[in-house]
Amino acid sequence: MARIAVTDGMSPDAVEMLEKEGHEVVLRHHDPDEISSGSLAVFDAVVIRSATKLPAEQISASIKDDGGIRFIGRAGVGVDNIDVDEATKYGIVVCNTPGASTRSVVEMTIGHLIASTRNIATADRTLRDGLWAKKNLRGSEIGGKRLGLIGFGRIARGVAQAARSFGMDVHAYDPFVTDSIQGITMHESVDDIFANCTHISVHCNLTDETRNLVNTERISTMPGVGADGIHCGNHIVSCARGGIVDEEAAQMALESGQLRTLALDVFESEPLGRSPLLNHDSFHGSPHIAASTLEAQARIGTEMASLLIEFFETGKTSTSLNF
Amino acid sequence: MARIAVTDGMSPDAVEMLEKEGHEVVLRHHDPDEISSGSLAVFDAVVIRSATKLPAEQISASIKDDGGIRFIGRAGVGVDNIDVDEATKYGIVVCNTPGASTRSVVEMTIGHLIASTRNIATADRTLRDGLWAKKNLRGSEIGGKRLGLIGFGRIARGVAQAARSFGMDVHAYDPFVTDSIQGITMHESVDDIFANCTHISVHCNLTDETRNLVNTERISTMPGVGADGIHCGNHIVSCARGGIVDEEAAQMALESGQLRTLALDVFESEPLGRSPLLNHDSFHGSPHIAASTLEAQARIGTEMASLLIEFFETGKTSTSLNF
Repeated sequence: MARIAVTDGMSPDAVEMLEKEGHEVVLRHHDPDEISSGSLAVFDAVVIRSATKLPAEQISASIKDDGGIRFIGRAGVGVDNIDVDEATKYGIVVCNTPGASTRSVVEMTIGHLIASTRNIATADRTLRDGLWAKKNLRGSEIGGKRLGLIGFGRIARGVAQAARSFGMDVHAYDPFVTDSIQGITMHESVDDIFANCTHISVHCNLTDETRNLVNTERISTMPGVGADGIHCGNHIVSCARGGIVDEEAAQMALESGQLRTLALDVFESEPLGRSPLLNHDSFHGSPHIAASTLEAQARIGTEMASLLIEFFETGKTSTSLNF
Repeated sequence: MARIAVTDGMSPDAVEMLEKEGHEVVLRHHDPDEISSGSLAVFDAVVIRSATKLPAEQISASIKDDGGIRFIGRAGVGVDNIDVDEATKYGIVVCNTPGASTRSVVEMTIGHLIASTRNIATADRTLRDGLWAKKNLRGSEIGGKRLGLIGFGRIARGVAQAARSFGMDVHAYDPFVTDSIQGITMHESVDDIFANCTHISVHCNLTDETRNLVNTERISTMPGVGADGIHCGNHIVSCARGGIVDEEAAQMALESGQLRTLALDVFESEPLGRSPLLNHDSFHGSPHIAASTLEAQARIGTEMASLLIEFFETGKTSTSLNF
């Protein structure tokens, strides 16, 4: 039976699943210094979220001649905090739980989109300031408008379905997607999305190619006038990864009016701190919580527990990021 | 050709439609005192929004022996600011434009619902305060939960459709609705809605029966645990009319935790001022802007212009509230 270090928390249900199979689960955060000194090498597996970082040297420190970790579980989606290549070199299986938070991120994306176009954050803030700013808070509908999705994976498809139920005309660009989906207009280039859509939602990974993908030049081509002829302005939402939206470019576009609203759940640098974006009423944000729900948490835990049980029973997993 | 007083604004498109037909449109606000002194009696019709009030004495002051207003247009939905019975007594036709803002209110209702369950207003406020409150802002999904609709007219049906696209199980109560809709569970009493639903959205008119309909007793019966077994707490949204949600009862329920969140676009007393609701992070609000979009505005104006043109051409309208 395996010893499993869980450094950033896990749902009680999931812990129970593992313990029922006879595994030992140790819930405790490990500091970078501890990990460098080999604190994880006494375990067979480690499950992290985003708070724990496992760059190359932390991974090699978690290996011993006669053992150490053989499995890294990322409870969640993004693995930018894990050096997967280094793990592969040592034969360590890396797994994440990409499906568990899909629905949460889909809902948050639509929530941020409507909160933007209807000034919900500013509305609440002005109420709290004792004002009744009804006259200054006229918004625009999303129905009848064109929504451009950058990336067309699992989450984007969920957003597309919800957006279509509101009467949006959905467009998408994804160089890795070859199938076509009924009712969605696929584009050959990301520039086409910007040139055609008043509303854009980002759903790609952060890579060298996608860093600062949402830049001044592209924002400047957004049409400002909806597919229905309404001067709704341009709106961008991202619950994907920080760094894809060039925040300085977005801020300039908010200032010039080329961008009517911007909603971000993710930032180039997190925690955000004192960003100039916060000076704009037409910006609102959240601290990387798009996947942070009771439901996603429960699903992430039980999905991860299933992967661990499978791994220690069979020596492999049905899905992994590197084997 | 008619003289039309427009006291609370109208879209340029609509004014143009009327002027094209030869009508004279006078865009100017009239104070209550002016109206009492007969300032509207020199017109054939008046078009108001919510800012102008037309109680009995203002209506009788707008009538002369040889003329006065024959048509009151409410550009929007609610006619609680018009004494329709008094208008009927004088043979004045009263029309509103109920369909024009449906889509806007549907979107705002879903926006408020997700903003509540995902803490969007608090998320933005804490970011602006320089905090990164990620850990305190875990929310819950709406998918998999039961949504109870109080009232099942045009707007509620739009909300039902959108909610179902997110995977909500939709329940409704409306004593005036006899038809059943595929996929919606209709209930025989409003109490049933509270006893069965963790999420409730209000969509009825304000009447003697519906005043304080959302009260302590009913809130206390809400289940707190979602249809999917998740302890999501109870959530109430209203973009209908102030006074249907008993705000003191709701505030007590927020305090006790029986209500996890409350989102209101409408209040017992507007402007809201210094409400104790504003002390709660689990409350957020907006200043009666659910119908306030460019699109609704444009539709309201052109719908109202069409009604006026029809009235002055034929002496009646195809739809009115009293004839």
